[in-house]
Amino acid sequence: MSETKTLEIMESVYARNEKLAVGLRETLSRRGVFCVNVMGAPGAGKTTSIIRIIEMLGLSSYVIEGDIESDIDSRMLQALGIHTTQINTGGACHLDAPVVADALADTDFSDGFLFIENIGNLVCPAEFMIGEHVKMLISAVTEGSDKPYKYPLAFEKADIVLLNKCDLETYVDFDMAFFNEGIKKLNPNTPVFRVSGTTGEGFGEAVQWLLNKAKQVIV
Amino acid sequence: MSETKTLEIMESVYARNEKLAVGLRETLSRRGVFCVNVMGAPGAGKTTSIIRIIEMLGLSSYVIEGDIESDIDSRMLQALGIHTTQINTGGACHLDAPVVADALADTDFSDGFLFIENIGNLVCPAEFMIGEHVKMLISAVTEGSDKPYKYPLAFEKADIVLLNKCDLETYVDFDMAFFNEGIKKLNPNTPVFRVSGTTGEGFGEAVQWLLNKAKQVIV
Repeated sequence: MSETKTLEIMESVYARNEKLAVGLRETLSRRGVFCVNVMGAPGAGKTTSIIRIIEMLGLSSYVIEGDIESDIDSRMLQALGIHTTQINTGGACHLDAPVVADALADTDFSDGFLFIENIGNLVCPAEFMIGEHVKMLISAVTEGSDKPYKYPLAFEKADIVLLNKCDLETYVDFDMAFFNEGIKKLNPNTPVFRVSGTTGEGFGEAVQWLLNKAKQVIV
Repeated sequence: MSETKTLEIMESVYARNEKLAVGLRETLSRRGVFCVNVMGAPGAGKTTSIIRIIEMLGLSSYVIEGDIESDIDSRMLQALGIHTTQINTGGACHLDAPVVADALADTDFSDGFLFIENIGNLVCPAEFMIGEHVKMLISAVTEGSDKPYKYPLAFEKADIVLLNKCDLETYVDFDMAFFNEGIKKLNPNTPVFRVSGTTGEGFGEAVQWLLNKAKQVIV
């Protein structure tokens, strides 16, 4: 197999995915649904952040939970009364538009927020649109402040960054200026909100940002 | 592009990679080099663990540092006098045997330990052999105790697991029994060592395990 062949195949995969994702986003917009693609490394606090945000939104919300295996997070969300659909990729390192379209096929959810929790992976999910209006990247102080430099695509594509686990900042070596500088270089307009999933602090401003964005997009 | 075609292409990629990786491992064995593939999520503490282990080994060591972008970790290792070669994948989510073979082509390193720090990713690196004798997986208490259930392949393939950041355990909600149980189900023989890259605690036993393993493999 030649390199050119591989490249051509990958391009066709991306093109097909993007076309489907754009269609999915348009359908969601028409139904009054604002869709957030939640990305982050394993254990960054994606599920906890989604729960905190839904609690503060006070609007109808729906979650698609992406995992390679297990339904641990879905069960946690469902126990809180949050409508959740589980996707298990069985090995695949990211969600794509076709699996999200399948997950949405059986629901008539409208007028609210749809959070899609992507596979815990700071690399591959950034390459695939899945019907979202915005990409929300969750990073954590415990991962270190060099992440924007090492995983630039995820930060470049992010519309909003939540820096989670700020309650642990005194116990780790985290350089806030270095972290912010790395993001600014890639993406000068992306806001960074400091939050703690454990204590609930800091989510108010992030929720306000999401609500403002939703108003611009959903007529 | 049909699904069958995709599958066939992926199988040929895996087969070609594995063949090269096995040859690489044989070459390293003949040169008296014991090779450790260091895997883990972004910010799990792979570089810090490598440094702690090399300090305790008291043997000649060499590091290949895999990152999508940046040479932050290489510079840290080189500042400590550790021979390090940087691989930047420019986007690829894992190392494979060809890029490792390229990185090793210019070195005549022999009789010691080679640590290859893979891309920070708990999914994709587990699928590719890169010439290693053992896979060492770094997990961290700050990532949560559900990781073996959500990312089973990485834990299934691991020969040794280091549970890092144990100095932060009192500040996070981590269930050691649940974590161990998840690993045992996938891989009953894999030892789990509790360590702290920050304080240096716990690495003694892990180093002893690596030395014993190296003696079995390298004649």
